[in-house]
Amino acid sequence: MQPEERAAALARIESARELLAPHLRRTPTVYSHTYSESVGADVYLKLENLQRTGSFKARGALNKALRLDAQARERGLVAASAGNHAQGVALAAKLCNVKATIVMPEATALVKVQRTEGYGAEVVLHGENWDQSQARALELAAERGMTMVHPFDDQDVIDGQGTVGLEILDDLPDVECIAVAIGGGGLASGLALAVKARAPHVRVIGVQAAGAAAMKRSFDAGVRVRVDRPTTIAEGIKVGNVGVRTFELVRELVDEIVTVDDGEIAEAIVQTMEKSKLVVEAAGVVGLAAIASGKIAPRGKLCAVICGGNIDLNLLARLIEAGMANSGRYHLVELRLSDAPGQLHRALGLIALAKGNVVDVQHYRAGWKVPVGFVDVEILVETRGLAHGVEIDQRLRAEGFELRAHSHTPH
Amino acid sequence: MQPEERAAALARIESARELLAPHLRRTPTVYSHTYSESVGADVYLKLENLQRTGSFKARGALNKALRLDAQARERGLVAASAGNHAQGVALAAKLCNVKATIVMPEATALVKVQRTEGYGAEVVLHGENWDQSQARALELAAERGMTMVHPFDDQDVIDGQGTVGLEILDDLPDVECIAVAIGGGGLASGLALAVKARAPHVRVIGVQAAGAAAMKRSFDAGVRVRVDRPTTIAEGIKVGNVGVRTFELVRELVDEIVTVDDGEIAEAIVQTMEKSKLVVEAAGVVGLAAIASGKIAPRGKLCAVICGGNIDLNLLARLIEAGMANSGRYHLVELRLSDAPGQLHRALGLIALAKGNVVDVQHYRAGWKVPVGFVDVEILVETRGLAHGVEIDQRLRAEGFELRAHSHTPH
Repeated sequence: MQPEERAAALARIESARELLAPHLRRTPTVYSHTYSESVGADVYLKLENLQRTGSFKARGALNKALRLDAQARERGLVAASAGNHAQGVALAAKLCNVKATIVMPEATALVKVQRTEGYGAEVVLHGENWDQSQARALELAAERGMTMVHPFDDQDVIDGQGTVGLEILDDLPDVECIAVAIGGGGLASGLALAVKARAPHVRVIGVQAAGAAAMKRSFDAGVRVRVDRPTTIAEGIKVGNVGVRTFELVRELVDEIVTVDDGEIAEAIVQTMEKSKLVVEAAGVVGLAAIASGKIAPRGKLCAVICGGNIDLNLLARLIEAGMANSGRYHLVELRLSDAPGQLHRALGLIALAKGNVVDVQHYRAGWKVPVGFVDVEILVETRGLAHGVEIDQRLRAEGFELRAHSHTPH
Repeated sequence: MQPEERAAALARIESARELLAPHLRRTPTVYSHTYSESVGADVYLKLENLQRTGSFKARGALNKALRLDAQARERGLVAASAGNHAQGVALAAKLCNVKATIVMPEATALVKVQRTEGYGAEVVLHGENWDQSQARALELAAERGMTMVHPFDDQDVIDGQGTVGLEILDDLPDVECIAVAIGGGGLASGLALAVKARAPHVRVIGVQAAGAAAMKRSFDAGVRVRVDRPTTIAEGIKVGNVGVRTFELVRELVDEIVTVDDGEIAEAIVQTMEKSKLVVEAAGVVGLAAIASGKIAPRGKLCAVICGGNIDLNLLARLIEAGMANSGRYHLVELRLSDAPGQLHRALGLIALAKGNVVDVQHYRAGWKVPVGFVDVEILVETRGLAHGVEIDQRLRAEGFELRAHSHTPH
């Protein structure tokens, strides 16, 4: 890219910032004591999960909508998304007082439909997956003359996302490295355009989910490579096809792309919730997960873009429970009792003495697999920590109870 | 209180702010689009859940610690708490390079012990409850000459908490009403001292949990009234005995005290997590719960102090699940099947066709209560919303399945 192109891109992103300022939140960049201490460098978080609609997507969509001419405004916007882009486009349309039609896959959770309708958009349920919704959205755009808002492969959208980069540089003039999630590459492209134009020495590191690393593969191969079945809990970056425009920008401007696996993402979600008191979605936390897991060298002043907070609450509850089991807050006692009255009562008495809180008791039903005269029972106990679970097992053994080998030991 | 007393109090709190500034976080005050739209007034949140240690308690403890003389520093601090005060005192001691001993009840979750030890404090497990831990802490203070840091009934602690009030006035010069949680009354006393000295027209409304409303009862009676068995999910304000000093300050300076019940608190926790992307503890969200539930009139510019974010993750997971059930994201199908091969398979097929996601299947075990030739099955299905659950039931009925009356219908 020529210097004049870079200057022009910076000017566009600065103009986007002016346009967006009255409507969107200037999100804070905060120092994280917890992550800084754990990795041994200064870690900052750009809290774009606190953005309106719960993600950065509102920036790009609004920058697109605000630049429509009168005729295009009359006809409205159309987009395909069941996620953050849907809400971003819906809010942008509302703020510009134009009509928005959002196509979502048929199986989309009602809460996502309602959230988008809450901004006044019309939701059309169509297709089994995003590709089919997108095809329908393209038809609608052609039939009704509506403006299609692509989730990432659009220069106005990219420029809008780039405003995140300007804000980070304003808040942290001496930042040395920025970690940013990559799905289709819109945020990374825009952010890198802004950052490399104003502070070319700052490293921009893209982070992808290991099971959906189309941009990393493309980056390494030098040509766009498709991932056929992207697999990750990070729905927001589960993208198999990178953009044409975003690929060129990422290839030129991003210094490095690293990946994190779903376990690292889950760990970061729970840690960020527990320690930083922030709700983050899986795609929103991959940058921080890369720092926390050592995929990005902990040197100097690092900033992770927490780019979204729209996590499915059911997933969140499951991740919390898994996290609690891993840290020893749940303990599974697997007992083989002699099939005589009072045995379960005795065992529960010992657990109560050890101050374990019984959450569930299950008898093993396929009784013929248990020796005659015995019955197998699983008791789920809430414990203070790993040592507490060990203590409960020891007390039971000391009183003559037989504990079976754990079949579901948390790792 | 005489004008000169008020001026002196303000001067002390301003001095506390100077002392605390280099060590603690200047937490942001943010506009909540969601809550503003739902109540029809401008609602702001003072994000003290983002404070170091996850609550405002670090302010009071640090203001106490920083004012110790050399001899007292030598001997260290002691406090009784299994909650936010424990971490506040531990961090304060670490920052002042003095020793801290924290007495906690014996059954305290290991994670809380570890978090406090993580700041370098010594943790002593003693007693069945806070009163017994506090008695031990008083003994330790007497034996070893350590300075006792009371969680609320201490002027330095109160003044430290008061810095929250100064920050709100700086961020929102035209705020009209501040909602603040009351347990023992330390935060409300300090905040009201600061606010009423600088902006006496601003209403300060205290909010208590309905099951632990000792300050409200005392406020109404004009004398300190004890609540013998305080009961609420809001552990941080589950206080039966209000302070002597805090009662006098609250009585004089707080305009009104309202209460919220545990259901309203739970709703606010889940809503704040889902909509505002913030992790809040039960005690930390009561002010906002009072605004959201209409206990505080939605007029003009309101600010709720989100005073803490240290929620037990197990409780959080349960609240999420209850919230999902209430909003129709879980649906329980209670079937009476004829006891013939293939019946369960057929039912599951219909649920799959309706795009319900089966989470659990349970057979009713006490089979003799079911008519001969039948078997009762409960199928837990993840649904898109209430209407989706109704649709699944209708499809099953249309195919001849017998649905039993719901015994666990979410309210």
